[in-house]
Amino acid sequence: MQKSDNQTKYYKLMEYLKGEILLGRIRPGEQIPSENMLAEKLSLSRHTVRKAISMLVNEGYLYTEHGRGTYCMDRSKKRNDSRNIGVITTYISEYIFPKVIQGIDSVLSGNGYSIMLKNTNNNTEKEALCLEDVLQKNIEGLIIEPTKSALFSNNLQYYEALDKHQIPYIFIHGYYQKLESKSHVLLDDAKGMYSAVEYLTGLGHKKIVGIFKADDIQGLERHKGYARAISEAGLPYNPDQVIWFHTEDREVKPYNVIRQMIENKSGVDAIACYNDEIAFRVYELLNSLGVKVPEDISITGFDDSYFSANCPVRITSVSHPKEKLGEAAAELLLEMLKDNDYLDNPVQKIIVPELIIKESCIKR
Amino acid sequence: MQKSDNQTKYYKLMEYLKGEILLGRIRPGEQIPSENMLAEKLSLSRHTVRKAISMLVNEGYLYTEHGRGTYCMDRSKKRNDSRNIGVITTYISEYIFPKVIQGIDSVLSGNGYSIMLKNTNNNTEKEALCLEDVLQKNIEGLIIEPTKSALFSNNLQYYEALDKHQIPYIFIHGYYQKLESKSHVLLDDAKGMYSAVEYLTGLGHKKIVGIFKADDIQGLERHKGYARAISEAGLPYNPDQVIWFHTEDREVKPYNVIRQMIENKSGVDAIACYNDEIAFRVYELLNSLGVKVPEDISITGFDDSYFSANCPVRITSVSHPKEKLGEAAAELLLEMLKDNDYLDNPVQKIIVPELIIKESCIKR
Repeated sequence: MQKSDNQTKYYKLMEYLKGEILLGRIRPGEQIPSENMLAEKLSLSRHTVRKAISMLVNEGYLYTEHGRGTYCMDRSKKRNDSRNIGVITTYISEYIFPKVIQGIDSVLSGNGYSIMLKNTNNNTEKEALCLEDVLQKNIEGLIIEPTKSALFSNNLQYYEALDKHQIPYIFIHGYYQKLESKSHVLLDDAKGMYSAVEYLTGLGHKKIVGIFKADDIQGLERHKGYARAISEAGLPYNPDQVIWFHTEDREVKPYNVIRQMIENKSGVDAIACYNDEIAFRVYELLNSLGVKVPEDISITGFDDSYFSANCPVRITSVSHPKEKLGEAAAELLLEMLKDNDYLDNPVQKIIVPELIIKESCIKR
Repeated sequence: MQKSDNQTKYYKLMEYLKGEILLGRIRPGEQIPSENMLAEKLSLSRHTVRKAISMLVNEGYLYTEHGRGTYCMDRSKKRNDSRNIGVITTYISEYIFPKVIQGIDSVLSGNGYSIMLKNTNNNTEKEALCLEDVLQKNIEGLIIEPTKSALFSNNLQYYEALDKHQIPYIFIHGYYQKLESKSHVLLDDAKGMYSAVEYLTGLGHKKIVGIFKADDIQGLERHKGYARAISEAGLPYNPDQVIWFHTEDREVKPYNVIRQMIENKSGVDAIACYNDEIAFRVYELLNSLGVKVPEDISITGFDDSYFSANCPVRITSVSHPKEKLGEAAAELLLEMLKDNDYLDNPVQKIIVPELIIKESCIKR
């Protein structure tokens, strides 16, 4: 339906005011300017202003006290009785995510909560939509996996709004710059990758390629662990042996570079992969090129997932607690819900993963 | 906290009245008996009755018109603006469920809806809790996989309540007795299993064992397809070759019986399994007993899942559309939401699966 110009005007004003309320810029109980003032200030007709305001009254964002004015509704009570928790992850059905979500659900539903599930597909604009949406819903708290946590977030205003509305949230897997001090449950990604690369150097490997994700903080941390293990083994850090990929080129970049290295006979001893999915696909590529794992090249993964278990050569990997991580996040969030000062008492849990030695590495 | 007897009394009354409202026995707009009448009828103090009622007023289930009486709130408007859809499945993180949920979510979130996710763990009491819970939440519709659909449901009252409250719901995978005429998206399970067993008889197999789940309708339907294929091939139907298992003994029963058959040298030619997970575990068992698949015994699965793909001998299976089934259910539910007469116009979609021939069967 084509909207007439007038419809657009009141609708835009309505959306603008709703946004200001959701972002906490108009506070609960705060009086908004009178219809006359708004009309004058924004060069709109009183009719347009009245229509926008009456829609927001209907939707429960504003209330009018007769003869006094229009005020921002305090939606916190409704929210705090909702027994709903928002859960936003990058993916739902893939890789380790079903198990993480299962862990979250088992604790929350066991405590009488329902989960409202959303995924960002690791897309920043979609994350904005998800956050906007949970701010409109009645949720008591939020468990969120950041989207491209290594990039500077454009969505900080939504996180600030969660704080203003006193909706506790907890990050899993990573966090954004400027939000390091917020509650989170993470793996010690640097230590995890360190243990894998230290194992490879201990097996006598010299030329160890590392594949890392550039747009999330796990990738940066895992790279740190790689660099430290290389350095402690007295090996030179060679930037040409480090492959950085992004969400967008994740299905192409790592394999093109590895293929070229093999074709150029670069003498690669081992490949330490960002995660098991990458390691599995690297295995398939090497296999197709006639390179044997582990006889010719050792490989390691990360997350100890079904990709590691189901590879014809089971892939040595770094543990990820999956359900347990989800459970821990849910339990910590439940504690935050009980703590009126949760903003001053962030809960932070770092899980140290372990190397799980399987069949994909041998001594040189 | 130990509740005093008085607390218990008002709380019980509150829960009772809330239950009557949720189950649609007290209708929106209906006046409830006066405090005096309730107190007298239930031999409670007026104080107790007043407390229960005031809690329900606070929670938005009742409203009081001064000097006239207390009425049941019409919660339908709030519900219909919520943009929330409930999704109840038996499991979340296992087997084909992540993909089905992903399909549901992609359609619903693409249409501006949020999903509220719950799982029953295939437990009837847990299903009751889930249904009670979604009746209390603001949801516009519900996608539900029945729990033990072959047993007579004790939870029919909740489904009736959904109808009374005009909350459309659609079954996936199965439905309950007495609710056959409701909206649903199913596989043609009988045809699917028929195609697998017809294939086995065509390969010259005579003694074909069937393993079926007794407590869901998919199991009964798949058994029908088995029986028809056996009969059409001119083979005798032998009850000793049919293994029925339940949710509770699913990890023990099928394998104990198969093990005994092998140890007794019963001359089994082939095993048609309820699903891929069973087929995979049957493969592992046969392997451990030194029986070769497919040389000694052919096996078939159902659902064309990762269990079929990742078995060392890839298992011939019957297709399941997974994401596509989830998408179809979500799309049909969206249509129902637009149809004021959805109760008179149930939407029913039956997907005919196909046999996917892989490596687990050979000619005798």
